[in-house]
Amino acid sequence: MHVIIPKNLLAEQIALLERVIPSRSSNPLLTYLGLSAAPQEGAGSGALVLFGSNGEVDLEVRLPAQVSGEGRYLVPSQPFFSLVRSLPGEAVELALGGESPGAQGTPQLSLSSGRFTTRLSAAPTEGYPDLLFPDPGGPGGDGVFPYRVLLPVEELLKVLAHVRYAASNEEYRAIFRGVQLEFSERGLRAVASDGYRLALFDLERPQPFVRKAVVPARSVDEVVRVLRSAGTGEAGLALGPGVLALEVGQGGEGALRMAVRLMEGEFPDYERVIPREFPSRVALEVEPFREALRRVSVLADRQNHRVDLLFGEGRALLSAEGDYGRGQEEVPVGLEGTPMGLAYNARYLLEALGPLTGSAELLLSGPKSPSLIRPLGGGGYQAVVVPLRV
Amino acid sequence: MHVIIPKNLLAEQIALLERVIPSRSSNPLLTYLGLSAAPQEGAGSGALVLFGSNGEVDLEVRLPAQVSGEGRYLVPSQPFFSLVRSLPGEAVELALGGESPGAQGTPQLSLSSGRFTTRLSAAPTEGYPDLLFPDPGGPGGDGVFPYRVLLPVEELLKVLAHVRYAASNEEYRAIFRGVQLEFSERGLRAVASDGYRLALFDLERPQPFVRKAVVPARSVDEVVRVLRSAGTGEAGLALGPGVLALEVGQGGEGALRMAVRLMEGEFPDYERVIPREFPSRVALEVEPFREALRRVSVLADRQNHRVDLLFGEGRALLSAEGDYGRGQEEVPVGLEGTPMGLAYNARYLLEALGPLTGSAELLLSGPKSPSLIRPLGGGGYQAVVVPLRV
Repeated sequence: MHVIIPKNLLAEQIALLERVIPSRSSNPLLTYLGLSAAPQEGAGSGALVLFGSNGEVDLEVRLPAQVSGEGRYLVPSQPFFSLVRSLPGEAVELALGGESPGAQGTPQLSLSSGRFTTRLSAAPTEGYPDLLFPDPGGPGGDGVFPYRVLLPVEELLKVLAHVRYAASNEEYRAIFRGVQLEFSERGLRAVASDGYRLALFDLERPQPFVRKAVVPARSVDEVVRVLRSAGTGEAGLALGPGVLALEVGQGGEGALRMAVRLMEGEFPDYERVIPREFPSRVALEVEPFREALRRVSVLADRQNHRVDLLFGEGRALLSAEGDYGRGQEEVPVGLEGTPMGLAYNARYLLEALGPLTGSAELLLSGPKSPSLIRPLGGGGYQAVVVPLRV
Repeated sequence: MHVIIPKNLLAEQIALLERVIPSRSSNPLLTYLGLSAAPQEGAGSGALVLFGSNGEVDLEVRLPAQVSGEGRYLVPSQPFFSLVRSLPGEAVELALGGESPGAQGTPQLSLSSGRFTTRLSAAPTEGYPDLLFPDPGGPGGDGVFPYRVLLPVEELLKVLAHVRYAASNEEYRAIFRGVQLEFSERGLRAVASDGYRLALFDLERPQPFVRKAVVPARSVDEVVRVLRSAGTGEAGLALGPGVLALEVGQGGEGALRMAVRLMEGEFPDYERVIPREFPSRVALEVEPFREALRRVSVLADRQNHRVDLLFGEGRALLSAEGDYGRGQEEVPVGLEGTPMGLAYNARYLLEALGPLTGSAELLLSGPKSPSLIRPLGGGGYQAVVVPLRV
C-alpha cells in the first residue's frame, strides 16, 4: 500500500484519536494506532482510515487520500502522533508492507515528508480487538444495530453537555457513573445523577424507537468532543446490544465513526425525586447570582461546602462560615410565595447553574426537600438539588 | 487600621505572592499572607504592604492606598487570594484589629467590596519568620548588605533566563542545583551546569564588587517572574551573608522587594571543561535545525535520547534509531574544517539551542570531547554539551 495525504489534514484529524488511544494499557495492542488504506476506482483516489480504541470507546477516522494498494497495519501511536504534528513538508507519504531485511520479517511503515524520512516498526492487526461499528447499509441492515436515528449534531451536543456534570465519580452505585439516554416517541431525554442531585434534558423530537441506554460518563466526554469537532450537520446514532455507535462527517470528505460500550442496567426510578409543588419560586439572573455564590462559598466549611440562602422580598442573602471566617452577600432576586431559608452544598448549586445563562428560576419545595432549577421560560433543562440538613 | 485600595490593583499584584506562599508547609504560619498598613503624612494617603515567604524566597509588595491607622497581621492566604480576584466592587475596604466578641480575642480582618462582606480570622505576626530584606538607606547603610548594584531589569532577566535550564534536578552534587552569579570588574556572569552540560552568560557591565553567589534554581524561577512582571526600569541587587535581595518598581507607585536564600559553597572550576580549539565549525540556522532535531529525536532511544549528527560539506545528516524504528533528516549547514560525526543526547542539544534565535555556531573540539554552542556574532551566551560515547 502507498498513500499520499496533505499533512495539515492528517495533523488536524489525529487529535481525537490521540485522546482515545491510551499511552499504556494492560493490552499493549491498544497503544497502537491502526492504519488501513482502501483504493477506490479511478487511479490515485481512495481513503486512509485511522482507528484506535481504549477498550471502552472505539474511534475511526476516514480521510480522503491518494491510495494505491490495500493494507491494514498497526503502528506505535506515540511517535506517529509526535511526528505528524511537526512534519516539514506539505504532504505526507506513507508506504507499508515492505519488510526490512535485518528485522526478521517485521513489516515497516515508511513515512516521509520534505527532507524527513522514517521507518516505523509496524505490527499486523491479528489479535487487535474487533471494533464495534455497525456495518454500513441502512437501518437494521446488518441485523445487529436495529435501532437507528439521525439527529442534528448541535442538538445531541446540547442534550449531553447539560447533564454530564451530575454523573457520579464514586464506585458506589456504579450505574450512576453513566448518563442515561431515553429514546421514545416523546423525544430524547438524557439524565444523570449521583444520588444527591440530578440533571436532565428533554429534547422534544420524536424518536423512532423506545429504548434506554446508559453511556459511561467518561465516554460521554469523548462523544461530546467528537460532536464539537464536527460542529454542524447530522449525527447518525445506532443502538446495538451493549453498544452505542455514532457517525458524523468531519468536513470535506472525511467521516468519523465512534462506538461506545454501554453500561449494564438502567437508572432506578428517579422521577419520584423531582418535586412538583413549590410554595416558593425565586427568579434570578444567573451570572451575578453565580458570582456571589462563588465568592461566599470561599468561606464555606471545606468538608460540606455549606452556604446558607435566605430568600426574602426582592433579595437573597447568601452567607457561609468556616475555619477562615464568615462572608455574606446580598443579591437581588424576585420571590413569589413564602420567604424561606435553606442551606446547599455550594458546589452542587454552582454546578446545577453551570449550563445556564440569562434568567433562571429556583423552585423551592421546602427547606428540607428537593429544589428544582430550570431556565426561565423553559428549554428542556431541569436540575434537582437537595438542601443540606440544618 | 483601615485601608481602601482599588480592587484591580490589588488583584493584579497578588499573583506573585500567590505563587510564593505555599498552600501547605511544615511551618503553618508560612501559609499565611502578611498585611501591614503604614499611613503617611497627609490624611488618607499611605501604603498597604503585602508579604509572604516559602522559607527560601521572601516577597513583599508595597501598594499605594488610602490608609488610616497602623497594623501588621497575618490572614489565611487561600481565601484571601480567591476572594480578591472575584470581588464585585471597584474598591476594596480592609479593616483590621477589631476582635469578634465570640472568638476569644482572635483579631478579624473585615474585607468588603460592593455588596460582599467577609470577616477573616487573622493572626498576630508573632512567630512569623523575619524577612531578609535589606533596610533601606543606600549602599552598606545597614552594614548587613555591603554589596549593592543597580542593573537594568531586562539585562538581569537575560542573564538568568539564558542559563537556568542547565541547572541540575538531582540531589547528587547539590551545588549544581543552583545558578552561580559572578560579580566582577569584567561584568556579571551567570553559570549553570549539571555536570554533563553547562550554560553561561556574560553581561559586559563592570560590577562595583567582586563576589560569587549561588541562587537555588527554583528561586531563580521566582526572580525571573518578578523581573518579567516589572518589565523595564532598574533592579536593585544587594548581597548580604547568605542572602540576595532584589528591589524593583511595579508600575505606578508600587514597589516589590524580594530576598532569596543563597546556597553554601561555589561551583568547582568549570572553565577547564570549556573547549578552546575546534577543528570543525558549523554555522546553522537555529529554527530549522531545531525542528529537524526535534522530529528525528522522536525515534531516539527513550533511555539515552541519542541522535547521530554527521556534518559534511553544506549539510548535516541527523538520524536516530530506537524501539519504534529509525528516522533521519538532512539540514543545510555551513561547515568550516574537518567533516565529523558525533552523537548527542537530543534533549541536551535542544535545551542548549533553546535560548537562541537566528544564526548560531556549533564548535566541535572532537567526536568525544565537548562542543560549544553560541550565537553567530557573539552575544554573551555559551553552552557546552558533551557528545555521547559511540
